[in-house]
Amino acid sequence: MMARGRRLGEGETPAVCMPLVGSACTSLLAEIGALLPQQPDVFEWRADHFESLASLETVTETALALRRALGDVPLIFTLRSVREGGMPQTLDERYALALVQKMACSTLFDFIDLELATDEQSLRPLVRSAQESGTQVILSSHDFVATPPSAALHERLRHAKSLGADVAKIAVMPVDSSDVLRLMEVTREARHALDLPLVTMAMGSLGVASRAVGHLFGSSMTFAAGLVASAPGQLSIEELREIFGILRSRNLPR
Amino acid sequence: MMARGRRLGEGETPAVCMPLVGSACTSLLAEIGALLPQQPDVFEWRADHFESLASLETVTETALALRRALGDVPLIFTLRSVREGGMPQTLDERYALALVQKMACSTLFDFIDLELATDEQSLRPLVRSAQESGTQVILSSHDFVATPPSAALHERLRHAKSLGADVAKIAVMPVDSSDVLRLMEVTREARHALDLPLVTMAMGSLGVASRAVGHLFGSSMTFAAGLVASAPGQLSIEELREIFGILRSRNLPR
Repeated sequence: MMARGRRLGEGETPAVCMPLVGSACTSLLAEIGALLPQQPDVFEWRADHFESLASLETVTETALALRRALGDVPLIFTLRSVREGGMPQTLDERYALALVQKMACSTLFDFIDLELATDEQSLRPLVRSAQESGTQVILSSHDFVATPPSAALHERLRHAKSLGADVAKIAVMPVDSSDVLRLMEVTREARHALDLPLVTMAMGSLGVASRAVGHLFGSSMTFAAGLVASAPGQLSIEELREIFGILRSRNLPR
Repeated sequence: MMARGRRLGEGETPAVCMPLVGSACTSLLAEIGALLPQQPDVFEWRADHFESLASLETVTETALALRRALGDVPLIFTLRSVREGGMPQTLDERYALALVQKMACSTLFDFIDLELATDEQSLRPLVRSAQESGTQVILSSHDFVATPPSAALHERLRHAKSLGADVAKIAVMPVDSSDVLRLMEVTREARHALDLPLVTMAMGSLGVASRAVGHLFGSSMTFAAGLVASAPGQLSIEELREIFGILRSRNLPR
């Protein structure tokens, strides 16, 4: 992964991303003020937590304010659907797509997260226009109930690649510790096979190992809890860096 | 695992064992003096590093001195063979077996490590007499070149169980990161299937993840470097405890 001329998570440690979950511009800016000193590699604006999504103007002004506040730190725009773990919204679907399209083409974001499960007719033009504007596309898939069979996970990653993703992301819920190992093995295999940066994690308490050592098996980015956790099982950025530092001290370059 | 009335590595964190590799009684006692404040859960006397193995009397006196110095901390006796990563020795094989037999029955050790690859005719009576003396038996297998196929690893663990092991230990060398995941998956499966405490690790820089998170997949003990590392890839006890503390804070009881 590259953003703003820097490599992200391609060395011995993964990039650490912190979510921004404020509901208004002022609270988002306060959140950035609190989290920026912890120097995450990337921020993700989880816009599904934003209360004024219905005003395209407010969203755009907020995006601009976030971009300014972050200086040179890369930013992801994510409007997570309820189906994949986002906050419930009352937005009309066509409006939501137009909003995402506008953000994708705003040049304010380094990455836009689009869900693989979006209907392909809507997804393809979104991917194309984002990339034409210089915004990289993360195609993502989240399962909060279980961990799909390995073949299904591979198929999702191949599908993301075939749709032109710059990055593919998969988050799953393990029902036993075997699922955690399987998710990491799929990541390892797909990272070799697809030549595509991957971001994968097993969520919840069982999955915490994947957040701690997943980078050793091909995941380029991990999510730390920000002011609050945006998904179950997230560690703090200090905890992650402590672990990565220890592992790096014993782990030669791959 | 139980020793001296305490559970070892059956909770949310594994037992941490530190090796003692001094070549004489005085250096071993100095080693204990340096390491005991770090409060490992178990010590392992790697007697293959001892320079006076040829004198049964010196070995016995040293064993007694170590036992006294350790107070109530459990102790493993290990005479590792060269074939499985031990220090080269010039001992006659019959003498070595008699020495191990004497230590196994000395009641000075909580555990004795015997190699699964020992010929069965020698191994069976050793296991029996150790256990009759109240010494628990760790049946171990080390591969410093590669990670055997999963079926072979399972077979070794089943074999250890069938020989009456109290604990089975497997250490392998991963040649790629897939081997590390495979070792942990075998551990997970066998822990469920065999009802036998297991101690497993993938060695070297690639294997470090197994030392950090292996307990989440069924390994009851991990080895920290003592004054020196006794096998490649060992972390320090402070590093291990830092990682276990972080993982435990997010990991509910299994």
